[in-house]
Amino acid sequence: MRIALLQVAAVPLDLEANLDLIDDAAGKARAGAAQLLLTPELFATGYAPQDVRDRLPEDRITAARTRLAEIARTRGIALVHCLPGVASAASVSPDASVEPAITVVFVDDAGIERAVYEKTHLFGPEERAAFRAGTSAPPVIRWEGLRFGLLVCYDVEFPETVRHLAAAGADVVLVPTALAGAPAVTGLLVPSRAAENLLSVAYANHVGEEAGLDFDGESLVAGPGGQVLVSAGTRTGVFFAEVGPALHGPPVRERPEGPWYLEDRRPSLYRRWAAEHGETPR
Amino acid sequence: MRIALLQVAAVPLDLEANLDLIDDAAGKARAGAAQLLLTPELFATGYAPQDVRDRLPEDRITAARTRLAEIARTRGIALVHCLPGVASAASVSPDASVEPAITVVFVDDAGIERAVYEKTHLFGPEERAAFRAGTSAPPVIRWEGLRFGLLVCYDVEFPETVRHLAAAGADVVLVPTALAGAPAVTGLLVPSRAAENLLSVAYANHVGEEAGLDFDGESLVAGPGGQVLVSAGTRTGVFFAEVGPALHGPPVRERPEGPWYLEDRRPSLYRRWAAEHGETPR
Repeated sequence: MRIALLQVAAVPLDLEANLDLIDDAAGKARAGAAQLLLTPELFATGYAPQDVRDRLPEDRITAARTRLAEIARTRGIALVHCLPGVASAASVSPDASVEPAITVVFVDDAGIERAVYEKTHLFGPEERAAFRAGTSAPPVIRWEGLRFGLLVCYDVEFPETVRHLAAAGADVVLVPTALAGAPAVTGLLVPSRAAENLLSVAYANHVGEEAGLDFDGESLVAGPGGQVLVSAGTRTGVFFAEVGPALHGPPVRERPEGPWYLEDRRPSLYRRWAAEHGETPR
Repeated sequence: MRIALLQVAAVPLDLEANLDLIDDAAGKARAGAAQLLLTPELFATGYAPQDVRDRLPEDRITAARTRLAEIARTRGIALVHCLPGVASAASVSPDASVEPAITVVFVDDAGIERAVYEKTHLFGPEERAAFRAGTSAPPVIRWEGLRFGLLVCYDVEFPETVRHLAAAGADVVLVPTALAGAPAVTGLLVPSRAAENLLSVAYANHVGEEAGLDFDGESLVAGPGGQVLVSAGTRTGVFFAEVGPALHGPPVRERPEGPWYLEDRRPSLYRRWAAEHGETPR
């Protein structure tokens, strides 16, 4: 399957401008034969956690979410977007309070929300002050013959998250992000998550100055050998890559040369080691 | 602390030749002011799992182990070596059978074995036929003000192993290896293990042709930002790097800019997700 990433700076707090950018990108992605467009973290609002909480009322966020579904339907492309969101899907935990979480939404090409996931690992004091951390497992969505996992930004830096998605059968992990000043994440960690789980990871970032931050860009798709299938560098635009089973090669069990990362891991030992070590649950 | 890695081809099944290579490397490492020498996986025997099992009797392995301790003592350097070994230390599980495991040993500069660890993740059918997989947690050894974790080869490709050592307080993870035809391991996975756990990883490999395999070399030490502190490429010899707290910077909790990988991970959620997913214990 051909997928696309959007990499550009958002306009802080200007929902209309950012939704127009996404609409335009969806058109370009579809024209480029992509079936899915991945957009950066909190792109419709701009990445400005406290301002977003203080200055964008819930009804405006809800209207943006409706328009994003409409963009997917009218452009005829699946759209993965990320907004402040109050729990609304079965995949979200029942203990959700009224505080919004940073939420990624998988909208199919008919405009239907197929899955929602709330960012589990909030980054730093501002995100923690503005948003609630999710607690539910990241979901895997079957769509058009592939299984897509969802994460947000800092989540993917924790190997446990992608491991969970791999064990749940994901072929491709989709990650909206807002990354500034962390080249090891795009240069090492994202390709490693793909390599160590024998799947693909797509990672879409803001680029350039936005609300006082200088975003790295460097959006990429990494394949199951850790190879970079596309890298946006610091350019703006829509970027394309092919992902899917043909790329992944034979199923893991059938690879004569290994590695066999999903077969050979030993989760029951890891749990025993942690218990022996007296690890504090968190 | 200054540490050294040995990278060279071993002579298959020629214990005397390989022990002489280690003795010589220990002398060079000490002359270069290193306090510790890390050697490759099954270096004293050569990396030839089935031949090692079939043709090297236990008493010869035991004699080699004695000589390795003597090398450390006479050269005045800590030596991390890897041999077939029958369980002999408190860190090894009580259910160990008589089958040997691939064993890494931390010998201090007085020639005393301070810790032993049995490779948990055996690679492929030949290793599985020749050796027993360990089940005990990798240990952390306090020595000369640093905390060293031990793993072997394929173990480090599983993020769970280094995460365990980081949670147990390791500053530096030492990994004897025998890696052939897997550039993503040295280029991505080893530096990522360092970056994602905010510690250093030292990885010592064979290089060139040995018992029908063509080893990658590419031994390296990666620092806690994922930066490569030394890389051996495909050269042979002894390679040096500085590791330790000065390099690691302030404790994780005190870094204003993050990331806070050890503080922010959520092990109790990961366990709950795995349970909900119905993961089969292995």
